[in-house]
Amino acid sequence: MWEGNPLKKKIHFGWFTEYGPIGWDGPDAVEGDWRQPKLYQQMAQICEKGMFDFVLYADHLGITSSFKGSIDNYVKYGLNGVNHDSTLLATMVAASTNHLGVGTTVSTMLTPPYLLARQMASLDHLSMGRVAWNVVTTGNVAGFLNFGMDQLPDHDARYDQAEEYMELCFKLWSSWEPDAVIMDRKTGVFADPDKVQPINFEGQYYKSRGPLNVLPTPQGRPTIIQAGSSQRGKDFAAKWADAVIVGAHYLDDMKAYYDDMKQRVTKFGREPEQLKVFFIIKPVLGMTEQLVNQKLEALRHPPESAIHAALSALSSRMNYDLSKFNIDEPLPPIDEKEIQGGQTTLSRFYTSGRRPTLREVAIEEAAGNKGSIAGTPEQVADQLQHIMESVGGDGFVVRVDTHDHGYMQEFVDTVIPVLQARGLVRKEYTGKTLRDNLMEF
Amino acid sequence: MWEGNPLKKKIHFGWFTEYGPIGWDGPDAVEGDWRQPKLYQQMAQICEKGMFDFVLYADHLGITSSFKGSIDNYVKYGLNGVNHDSTLLATMVAASTNHLGVGTTVSTMLTPPYLLARQMASLDHLSMGRVAWNVVTTGNVAGFLNFGMDQLPDHDARYDQAEEYMELCFKLWSSWEPDAVIMDRKTGVFADPDKVQPINFEGQYYKSRGPLNVLPTPQGRPTIIQAGSSQRGKDFAAKWADAVIVGAHYLDDMKAYYDDMKQRVTKFGREPEQLKVFFIIKPVLGMTEQLVNQKLEALRHPPESAIHAALSALSSRMNYDLSKFNIDEPLPPIDEKEIQGGQTTLSRFYTSGRRPTLREVAIEEAAGNKGSIAGTPEQVADQLQHIMESVGGDGFVVRVDTHDHGYMQEFVDTVIPVLQARGLVRKEYTGKTLRDNLMEF
Repeated sequence: MWEGNPLKKKIHFGWFTEYGPIGWDGPDAVEGDWRQPKLYQQMAQICEKGMFDFVLYADHLGITSSFKGSIDNYVKYGLNGVNHDSTLLATMVAASTNHLGVGTTVSTMLTPPYLLARQMASLDHLSMGRVAWNVVTTGNVAGFLNFGMDQLPDHDARYDQAEEYMELCFKLWSSWEPDAVIMDRKTGVFADPDKVQPINFEGQYYKSRGPLNVLPTPQGRPTIIQAGSSQRGKDFAAKWADAVIVGAHYLDDMKAYYDDMKQRVTKFGREPEQLKVFFIIKPVLGMTEQLVNQKLEALRHPPESAIHAALSALSSRMNYDLSKFNIDEPLPPIDEKEIQGGQTTLSRFYTSGRRPTLREVAIEEAAGNKGSIAGTPEQVADQLQHIMESVGGDGFVVRVDTHDHGYMQEFVDTVIPVLQARGLVRKEYTGKTLRDNLMEF
Repeated sequence: MWEGNPLKKKIHFGWFTEYGPIGWDGPDAVEGDWRQPKLYQQMAQICEKGMFDFVLYADHLGITSSFKGSIDNYVKYGLNGVNHDSTLLATMVAASTNHLGVGTTVSTMLTPPYLLARQMASLDHLSMGRVAWNVVTTGNVAGFLNFGMDQLPDHDARYDQAEEYMELCFKLWSSWEPDAVIMDRKTGVFADPDKVQPINFEGQYYKSRGPLNVLPTPQGRPTIIQAGSSQRGKDFAAKWADAVIVGAHYLDDMKAYYDDMKQRVTKFGREPEQLKVFFIIKPVLGMTEQLVNQKLEALRHPPESAIHAALSALSSRMNYDLSKFNIDEPLPPIDEKEIQGGQTTLSRFYTSGRRPTLREVAIEEAAGNKGSIAGTPEQVADQLQHIMESVGGDGFVVRVDTHDHGYMQEFVDTVIPVLQARGLVRKEYTGKTLRDNLMEF
């Protein structure tokens, strides 16, 4: 069965995107209005042709003022922070696909748990078993200000609250026994009341009577995705998630992360294969080596507006104002305690021992993860296979802007078939639900 | 233009539905799973064929225990309270229609205003200008218990809070000036920061910094629908709503309600035609008078399970336990102050001076509004035209269960063409948005 496949299992793929205007002025942006559903639906259909497990939409609950204490740069460049509610976008995309999982990012801090549990259950029904919830605790103060709070709660406090949030949601999702619905036309009885019980949850942060007023769903509960990379975040993922996505840049880091996560899950009484690890990538792809080299060269010289945009985006992700540093001087060390957002955002820049300038950081940020994997379709396939062989599994999420259809089309038309020919990517969907597909290998 | 049309304007139609399992065991229920999107999409396409302005989905945030203090009856009969999140359902239906407005019911008491404002703006983009928000203050305690509160706030207090909620949402929806987006590829500038401002809202109940992190939408703000029939409810609708729906049963009541609402809107500096009045109907429809009479007779003798279901549903709507009364004795008067839910639910039963038994009330409830309009397609068209001529406008919402495709298909195939031939129903959609269509006549 696995002849010629040294992995003895296949590679999972997903599409991860910050969407909205992002990429609107990129060199490869297609015509089309990102406010309307068409671009998203077309992109998802490309992913489905490529046998991806899921698409995952990022989300933001406000326009940040992390850079220079103002929203201006974010508005000016159309940066992350201006986009649709990702749950509604996922619903719209579910309507025009049949197998692709639809993942939405929802904050435990700013969404009432009963509302979240109900929307996820509804979307699992409406997508017929394809919903995924990317659990975030919201590391940027903008969302809190929009929701009536004055400041960002502490990083660890957010995870304490998230733990209780998950307990409550999982109880709501199992508040109807699977065989509660009878539908007996003779007696007019729809369901057995003995098999539907209030949960009467009372925690430190949340209370809820239940039961959920949505019937048991195809997946039982949504597929849970998480992207935490702090110690708390990794434990949280190991306990609750079906899949974790991580931006790893070096093979050693990926291997260490993979082994760490597979070990962590066993601490919570789970099997290592119950948590799939996805590495975030955007390979530089060209049909010839000459084209690849041209693209790599272009990435080293982004326009000045892209550099400003990248710095603003980094400040937002860290919830930390980078504008106070001189852009062409080596970046001084920053105390992690001062960073209330993504704490590990900059750590990869320090690994070489040399301090980068902010300009160097911004150029790499503007390039995305594009530099680490590059080549012709065969070469990119080789590199992806090599990573999987070295690390042990499980897959990749390709991070592409919604506007960059050309890239995704090329990836699906050229790289995926090479991997399929090697037995490394599925040729058809076999599972009925997203979790079936995710747990297949 | 209006030759032969005594109204000198057309009649609007909408579909209003409590959905989910409701009607699962009805005599006309089609095969199909109401948990999946197909039934809803097909039904919406029928409405679109009938040139309806919108579909409006009711919603509930919990399974009530209004009857005998227990959820049992509601679970047992699959009553209102078990259904999908109506915003996601509306999104799914928007994906398979092109002109029909998609209306969702969302509570001001249990949804953070920023979240609501953002979901409505997103859905307005994704539906390309077709979203409607049915504003409710939630009159049943079940939702409050599920969201961590201990009791139902007072009826008037809920409206005080809703007023502020609307102010905040309207500010968020206009926090980007219409011409803020520039998209200048030469400079890389996406939008003019001077035209996008924080709102810094600070009220008695809510705070929000803003601006909304969704771009200005096709309708600017969602079409607002309201169904209040109390004095507070009517003032609220007169101030904020584009359309109001009301369950009127006698022509005099309809005329009085219509005149009252058209007068009320002027108190708030608006024109009478800015608020459209829709009466909730479900005509008994048959191809022959004999068939109509058979259907009317059947409605007078519902099965015992339907009577129990109807009493539970009434208790839920009123948030008041009707199980304490003997089902076959005249209903004693109930102090309106004891009813924290829909206060006017029972009032129509008292108008004749005679006290009905609970069984009589339940039989009429089980029949819906079916008794007041009945006939062949020509006769039903006559009655609908007569109501509109007598009242002055504006339209009807047909209240049909999702399962009852046959009814809606028949209504659209037989009654609508008669009205179209008389120039009383549009033959094609002319507006780009829901509000365009609603305000056309």
